[in-house]
Amino acid sequence: MTNEIFLTKAEQLKPVLHHQAVLLAGNETPMKDGGECIFDFGRHCVGYLDIEFGTEGRHPDAPLLFSIQFAEIREELDYDPEEYHGWISRSWVQSETIHIDDLPCTCRLERRYAFRYVRIRILSVSNNYAVTIRSLKADTVSSADDSQLMPASLNEKDRKLDEVSVRTLHECMQEVFEDGPKRDRRLWLGDLRLEALTDYVTYRNYDLVKRCLYLFAGSTLEGGRLSNNIFLYPQPKCDDQTMFDYTLFFINTLWDYYCASRDEETLRELEPVCTRQALLLKTCFDENHLLDTEKAGNVFIDWNLRLDKQAAGQGVYIYGLSDLVKIRRQLGLPAEEFEREIQLKKQAVLRLYDESKGVFVSGPSRQVSYMSQIWIILAGAVSPRLGASVLEHIEKMPEAEGMVSPYAVHHYIQALIDTGQKEKAYEKMHAYWDGMIEKGADTFWELYDPKDPLASPYGGLIVHSFCHAWSCTPSYFLRTYFRNRES
Amino acid sequence: MTNEIFLTKAEQLKPVLHHQAVLLAGNETPMKDGGECIFDFGRHCVGYLDIEFGTEGRHPDAPLLFSIQFAEIREELDYDPEEYHGWISRSWVQSETIHIDDLPCTCRLERRYAFRYVRIRILSVSNNYAVTIRSLKADTVSSADDSQLMPASLNEKDRKLDEVSVRTLHECMQEVFEDGPKRDRRLWLGDLRLEALTDYVTYRNYDLVKRCLYLFAGSTLEGGRLSNNIFLYPQPKCDDQTMFDYTLFFINTLWDYYCASRDEETLRELEPVCTRQALLLKTCFDENHLLDTEKAGNVFIDWNLRLDKQAAGQGVYIYGLSDLVKIRRQLGLPAEEFEREIQLKKQAVLRLYDESKGVFVSGPSRQVSYMSQIWIILAGAVSPRLGASVLEHIEKMPEAEGMVSPYAVHHYIQALIDTGQKEKAYEKMHAYWDGMIEKGADTFWELYDPKDPLASPYGGLIVHSFCHAWSCTPSYFLRTYFRNRES
Repeated sequence: MTNEIFLTKAEQLKPVLHHQAVLLAGNETPMKDGGECIFDFGRHCVGYLDIEFGTEGRHPDAPLLFSIQFAEIREELDYDPEEYHGWISRSWVQSETIHIDDLPCTCRLERRYAFRYVRIRILSVSNNYAVTIRSLKADTVSSADDSQLMPASLNEKDRKLDEVSVRTLHECMQEVFEDGPKRDRRLWLGDLRLEALTDYVTYRNYDLVKRCLYLFAGSTLEGGRLSNNIFLYPQPKCDDQTMFDYTLFFINTLWDYYCASRDEETLRELEPVCTRQALLLKTCFDENHLLDTEKAGNVFIDWNLRLDKQAAGQGVYIYGLSDLVKIRRQLGLPAEEFEREIQLKKQAVLRLYDESKGVFVSGPSRQVSYMSQIWIILAGAVSPRLGASVLEHIEKMPEAEGMVSPYAVHHYIQALIDTGQKEKAYEKMHAYWDGMIEKGADTFWELYDPKDPLASPYGGLIVHSFCHAWSCTPSYFLRTYFRNRES
Repeated sequence: MTNEIFLTKAEQLKPVLHHQAVLLAGNETPMKDGGECIFDFGRHCVGYLDIEFGTEGRHPDAPLLFSIQFAEIREELDYDPEEYHGWISRSWVQSETIHIDDLPCTCRLERRYAFRYVRIRILSVSNNYAVTIRSLKADTVSSADDSQLMPASLNEKDRKLDEVSVRTLHECMQEVFEDGPKRDRRLWLGDLRLEALTDYVTYRNYDLVKRCLYLFAGSTLEGGRLSNNIFLYPQPKCDDQTMFDYTLFFINTLWDYYCASRDEETLRELEPVCTRQALLLKTCFDENHLLDTEKAGNVFIDWNLRLDKQAAGQGVYIYGLSDLVKIRRQLGLPAEEFEREIQLKKQAVLRLYDESKGVFVSGPSRQVSYMSQIWIILAGAVSPRLGASVLEHIEKMPEAEGMVSPYAVHHYIQALIDTGQKEKAYEKMHAYWDGMIEKGADTFWELYDPKDPLASPYGGLIVHSFCHAWSCTPSYFLRTYFRNRES
């Protein structure tokens, strides 16, 4: 379903992109077939590239054929794009093969890339000339305005973590909050929620969040169900897939937006979208008020394919409805129906507590996982004390299903904070994200397993996104919970 | 040396290109990775291509990566561009690998191509969608104006030969007379001379010839020596190489231009360039007035690397000076010096006649070749009767060095005509050029050996030019010598 009024609002909120040039000296060594060089821009860039080619020798009498590969991290260049055969489309690999008919010239590549490193390889010139690279210019783009970045009283160690987080967010802020500027370059609800939280304590670009909310509300599936993600071209259009948890996060994102901006008009206009999601998802539970994962359909939670989603999904539902109640109360709308629903679901989830193990279990296999504990805590379904206890118990259960993405670890850190364990949250946060910094990260990655940092569930890290929105939240934590802290 | 006045004149004569669209229905069969299709535009095109891509399935969620190869003849598509390792730069192979970020869309390729066939191969899409090709549009360009094409009274058989010749010329007429629109896309003096001759009996675009003459005269080597060819980008600039015969052809091209256009102003302005070439090349002879091929440097004559160039080069020199005398006489300038020179060189060349063999020989090895006979005839150094005799004798000498290019065969046809053998010229012309038509040629080729039509001296026909200026002269012969002929 399309709501043209909402899409028009979104269109009117389209941001102006700020351009910044990053110049690099070239390589004046003349190159013939097979010659190559690698350039390091010294920082992560999202944008366009100009290459200034010169020549040596006689007048160029045949086109130049060259290949170029862009990489967010240096290791990507160790992989041959042609050799990638994983399940993600290899069209995501940032490499091109280009002819230049007339030299010398400045070649502007048409597409936008996410990169710090660029490798240029000369595939063919004629016998009569060699080619030099006089200079490179990255024309970087972002809708984040660095002049608006809020200062933060952070100690040295936290400042570095904050910088990389802010940079990650900066790079993902384009015409929408993208999930990653390399891949998928798209607006996803799960990513949006975390980007918005971080935005409110950094760039405070409320309009970009508002635009994204209207985009989701402006293009929905049959019955008004929100999609996971929105395509922007050729015109805004929702994907045809849903995820139970992402649908609910629209409610939280709207409430967070209101809390930051106090924009009651938007709250009022989009409340019906929130209420509709709650009503649509009400049917996904069994007679015991526990989530029926078959009815719920796709529940994301984390990139762990073994994960049973019942307990965590139940937590997300309560978490979403809790903010719906706040929205409706704020607008003076009745909310009792949803309060009752929350109570029923909170009571039901306690049935999943395994006293002998001291943790919550999930699904018919009674699976023990971090994510089940975390979402039941975030839902407020247990006391901080019981929450702290289940987190303590699971740490001693090596067989428990762990977390595989920074997105999951974000929720773990929040759960530690919510159960009164701020110090532990601080340490765990640093331990995890500092690990990427130690590996040279300029921006935080889509995937990071401290035990196997460059492992790929995609069949090759060449398609990984090394600047990924859902990994930018250390700034949110630092600026919200850890200001003015001694180092 | 640069003559800005001449280059400014050339710039002012830059033609407007005529655009013509050639539309083709696409292939609505959805394609995934590895899918491909070949499109046939039904005629040779020089220009730009628009591809209208559609999609099937879910919304495209990853870029499309496709490759495209353009071919002038169908057989080019049988060769893998990556496998070409000949001595010509493989950057000439007309293939690209392209990413499309947003679909559906119409993709305009930036470069100009020469093609009849186009193969599109889908390298990668995502699992969620397939791609269709809705339509293709070739935006063809030429400075030849078809509305100005002169009619010709030709019989059926000659008309077909004329059509393909005219088409060849049409495709090579761009901002200059190019040698070939696929390769080298450049202004060469040897090609220009034959294109201009054909132009005068077809499109009569005198200004384009004039522009090319001023380009050559506007950028010369030290001492005012004319180059083989001119580069147009980034600004007109002569190549740093010369060829003895091409240098002289400037004189003939100017005289032919004057005879066609009666533009005495240009004749007067460019005569000093012609006289200078004659004076510069005067030193390339030995004490017996025979060409010293070491002093002459590069003499092209034909793409036959075994060819001894002494006799043919001597012929070209006389041929060039003969037109210089006409130019100077027309302008009322003294010409005796050059007439004497012609007489000396004509007398000297008779020493190369081998009475026992009945042919002219060339160089210390006394090589017998077609090109030696041909150029001595074209120089007017022998009577038509002796000319006919040497051509008759050489036909019975299988060891004689033959002709390997249509450029060489052109001169053979002219020599037959000049020795009074019009019928034989007509038959030989048809036999040679019709052979290409029988192989499906839409335009005439750079190279054609009737005994081995697709042989490649370049290590692969994928880099051959199948629409080449120097092959367009059947229209010149037909319209000059064979009009109103019964079939």
